[in-house]
Order: sequence, then C-alpha cells, then structure tokens
Amino acid sequence: MKALILKALKENINHYISGEQISNQIGVSRTAIWKHISELRHEGYHIESSSRKGYRLISAPEHLSAAEIQAELNTNCFGKNIIYYDTITSTNNAAKEAAAKGCDEGTVVIADRQTAGKGRLGRSWVSPPNSGIWMSVVLRPEILPVQAQFITILAAIAVGRAIEQIAGITIGIKWPNDIVINRKKVCGILTEISAEIEQINYIVLGIGVNVNLDKDDFPDDIKHSAASIKSETGSTVSRKKLVVRILENLESLYKNLYKKEFYDNAKADLINEYKKYSVTLGNRVKAIYQNKTIEGYAEDITENGELIIRSDNGEQHTILSGEVSVRGLYGYI
Amino acid sequence: MKALILKALKENINHYISGEQISNQIGVSRTAIWKHISELRHEGYHIESSSRKGYRLISAPEHLSAAEIQAELNTNCFGKNIIYYDTITSTNNAAKEAAAKGCDEGTVVIADRQTAGKGRLGRSWVSPPNSGIWMSVVLRPEILPVQAQFITILAAIAVGRAIEQIAGITIGIKWPNDIVINRKKVCGILTEISAEIEQINYIVLGIGVNVNLDKDDFPDDIKHSAASIKSETGSTVSRKKLVVRILENLESLYKNLYKKEFYDNAKADLINEYKKYSVTLGNRVKAIYQNKTIEGYAEDITENGELIIRSDNGEQHTILSGEVSVRGLYGYI
Repeated sequence: MKALILKALKENINHYISGEQISNQIGVSRTAIWKHISELRHEGYHIESSSRKGYRLISAPEHLSAAEIQAELNTNCFGKNIIYYDTITSTNNAAKEAAAKGCDEGTVVIADRQTAGKGRLGRSWVSPPNSGIWMSVVLRPEILPVQAQFITILAAIAVGRAIEQIAGITIGIKWPNDIVINRKKVCGILTEISAEIEQINYIVLGIGVNVNLDKDDFPDDIKHSAASIKSETGSTVSRKKLVVRILENLESLYKNLYKKEFYDNAKADLINEYKKYSVTLGNRVKAIYQNKTIEGYAEDITENGELIIRSDNGEQHTILSGEVSVRGLYGYI
Repeated sequence: MKALILKALKENINHYISGEQISNQIGVSRTAIWKHISELRHEGYHIESSSRKGYRLISAPEHLSAAEIQAELNTNCFGKNIIYYDTITSTNNAAKEAAAKGCDEGTVVIADRQTAGKGRLGRSWVSPPNSGIWMSVVLRPEILPVQAQFITILAAIAVGRAIEQIAGITIGIKWPNDIVINRKKVCGILTEISAEIEQINYIVLGIGVNVNLDKDDFPDDIKHSAASIKSETGSTVSRKKLVVRILENLESLYKNLYKKEFYDNAKADLINEYKKYSVTLGNRVKAIYQNKTIEGYAEDITENGELIIRSDNGEQHTILSGEVSVRGLYGYI
C-alpha cells in the first residue's frame, strides 16, 4: 500500500497530486493515505502538503548503498569493501562475523537501521532508519593488544573532524570518546577487540552518529543528554557525505599508526588535538572507576589517552577507562 | 568391521581369543584382523597378542566425557558445564562460539581429537585421538583487558603443578607459557580474548597437553623439540586425572584474581613460583620482538610477567610478548 502511494508520488515528483487522485488510483481512503504519507515522512521522504493541492514529493531519503558511498570515496583501503544492510541487529556483530571469516582490513558494515544497536558496556543504542550513521569498520593493526586503546582516541578525532567539516559546527569530545554538541551526545564509538596476548586478530570500530534524528526519536530517559546534528544545527546533513569524510579521516590518521615516527610525533600531535576538543579537561568530574567513585578535577590527558584526575583529597588518579561525568551549568553530563 | 572385532575382544576381556575364532565369527581374513587390531592399539586400546593364543584386550582407552570428569571433579565453577566432542576442528573455536552465545564462566570444551587444533600466532597444533588433553576454558574476569596477560602466567602454573602432581615429574616453563620436560615442549597455552577497551567480554584459555602421544605422533619438523609426558617418563598417565587436577588448580588460582589483596601478595607469590619453574631465566636467549632480533641474557621477570633481557650491548629490554628461544647444550630451543 505504502509502496503504491510512493509510486504515485514519484511519478509526479515536484508536482502536486491530490489525495482524491491517489485515492481513486489505488483504491484506499484518504485517511489511510494521510497515515502512510506521515510514515513516509518519518522515513526521510520530504513531502509537502497543501489542503487545496494535495501532496508533492520534494526528495527521497539518501540511500547509503556501497555504490553510492564508493562513488564519492577517496581512500586506498577503508570502504573498498562495503557490506550494506537495510536492517540488521547490530553492525558490530555483523562486522565481527565478517572479520572472523577473514575479511580484509578496511571492510565496512553499514546499515540503515539497527534493531539491536549496541553502545559501550552492554548498553543499547537507538538506531532508527534514514536518520543516522550506523557503521562498523574492521581493522587489523600490527600492534600489541595493550596499544589498542589509542585507536579509540584516533577514531573520536576522525569523526569529530568530519562532523565539523560537513556540518560546519564545533564539536567537543567527552572522555574517552563521546562526541558532543552543546554538551549533548551525538556520537558514540564502540571498539571491540579479538586478540591473543601478543597479537590482535581484529578490531571492530563501531561508530554511531545521530545525524538527522528528531528529538522524538530518543527515549525519554536520554532526551536531556542525547541530540542529533540536525537537532542542534537546525539543518539536515547528508549522511553519505559524512560517511565518506569519516572514512577518509579515519584512514589518513590510522595509516600513521604504521609509521616509525608515529610514537614520537604524530601521537603527541593527536593527543594535543584531542585535548583541544576535550569537554572533560579542566572541569569538575565524577568518575566511577574500579567500583569506587572519585570526585575531583580533570587535570590532564596522558600521552596514551588516559585521564588524570586530582581528587578532592589531593590524590592523583590515572584512569584508563570507566564512566566519567562532567559538571556543567545544569549538573553532571 | 573394527567395531565387530572390538566387540569380540570385549566379550572376552582379559581372556585370549584366537585370530581364527575372530575370523570365523566375523568372516574376515586374519590379515584384516591384524590390521584392525593395530589401529585399535593406536587409538589407545591395550591389546596383548601371542602367536599361540591370539589376542587379549587388557584395557580400553579412557573416555573424557563430561560425566567421567565431573564424577571426580572438586570445583565450584570450572567444569560444572562440560561440552565434550569426539572430534572437533578446534576446542578454542567451539569455546568462543559458546562464549559469544553467553555460556557461563568455567564452561569447558574438551575433545578427544582436533582436526584443526590451533597453537599461538596462527600455528597448528597436532591433536590425535586418545592421547592428549585438548580443552578450552571460558573465563569472564572483571579486570581490564591490559591485565589479561597475567592469566596466561597463572594458567601455566596451574597446568605445570598438575603435571607434577599426577605424573610425578619435574616440569619447566619456557617464557611465556610453554611447559617443557627435559627442555621439550609438552604443553602449550593459547589465550584468546574478546574485549571492549574497558571490559573483557570473555577469555578462552586453550590448553593442549601431550599426555600419551608416541614419538611417531609428532611431525618430523617438531620431533626434536616436542614430547609427551609418556615419551619422557615412560609411563602412561590418566588423562582424566590430569584434566581434573588442571581444572582444580586453575580454579583455585583464578579465584584469587578477585580478592583485593591479589595485587599485593598473591600475585607476587605467583611470580616467584613462576620464576622457579622458568627455564628461560638466567640463560642466554634470542628474542624476536617487534621485528628486531635481540640476543642477550634473560635477567628477570617483572611483577606483570614480562621478560627483561639484557642485550649484548648492555641495553635492557622489557618484553611483553614475542618469540624467545633459550640456548641449551644442543643449541636454541
């Protein structure tokens, strides 16, 4: 039914077609048409309506297929192999399966919608259709497992830069790797590792960006702390352009990991860039770390990306990971 | 055919039955019987033969089923769930699948035979039937991924102690976790980790012990460096008793990881025990580490289990992982 209505609209793209015409053509009530049009809008179709003239299709949503992305992508490795799904449980799970079967480094799994999107520490990630970037990249770095934590820092910078470049807005990074706009989270990164003690089998870098979600797309319990690029800038952003830029940034930063001088210069440069983005540094923080709660001041980021907190009793804590909330005007975020 | 011959032998267990009798009963040639008896012996059946009296079954091989092991096992968690296979590609792969589906900590996958047994760094592991322990244990420790390397030290000690207790022989540990008898490898441990940056999803600890293999079971290229407990002691060892003892030792050492004082006392005690077992420490070594070859003297083991090598030019190298061979009377092992 919805497909027939869409077909009628597409045959008249940029021209009005009245509800009555559609109703006669397909044989459904005008109330049913209104209901389906409303659904199509939610799926990303831009449809204008006028009580006198009827409905007019302005644009269809972007399709994130491999061909669409690759046509604009300027990389050597990342995204050369793209596995696209309209709907999948979790792109990270699909990427882990592909990696276990031996897929190439740089393989990207991308889905228009996730039914069981995953966040860090076993949490879920809201991933409705036509509105976000839900993708995972397979990496096979020749580094020790203990060095893997730096890749998540690198990924946050790659995505942060891409959002600034495409959306023209300033982002911040909440330690370790949440990207925030106006202190609200618009992107999360979930790094999953399969390793032996002395070598990494693969890393799956899961990147979730809330691009064009509306406020209503978020559940009530995260509405105050989550946002999308659109909700903060007021403008719709091309998901395809953003995917392309993320992959390009990621590849160019990642390639440096292999250069001899990386651990001398490039890494220090990245940490400096990271510090500039940080919304955590220099603020009062509350950390839950190894089952203890530490309150204090976020003093510095180490060369490996760890957070140094000076707690109120003067002790210094160097934190590799954990939950760290930052005090703002309206309480901790 | 072989099953019918085995049936005939079992019906006469501890009594001789002549080749002619078997031949008449089953209707095969005496040459065929001899061939099948030879195969049964290779599978672990102890069959005596006498040119006058015929064949006599003394004992059948041990069966490592869940029930057989659990009947003797005194643990709270490890081995409470045992998945047994007669034949499988790799117990680590099966354990990873079970872990990904959410199996309990302490779940054990054990097989009589592996067709694609895995060693460290993508190598293969010879795993013929009825002669070794090929098993994997699923762990879910609440530690950071960077702390996981210590579990492999702990596992080497657990298995080493078990071999000494059951076989009454002195073992050594070649850094990081090969168990050797008379400087020949009888056990390897393959630790595979699935993790996020800040938490471990699961660890699969793969333990391969060459228990009753004959010298001929090893391929030519590793004959000089590999051995079994039987080949070094001259005696057959009960695989079941050894499995039970390994799981008991492993559980008791592993439980300490959760105790607050572990990182103060128990860990230091374990490192001291590890040093006593070490065949690497105090010897001349050759290490391949981050694509460089270092020759020198194995000076110490750190509190985290890293190896400290003093190279010939006086530099000190702290090595987390890699290939380290030890010079002996007859060259490097």
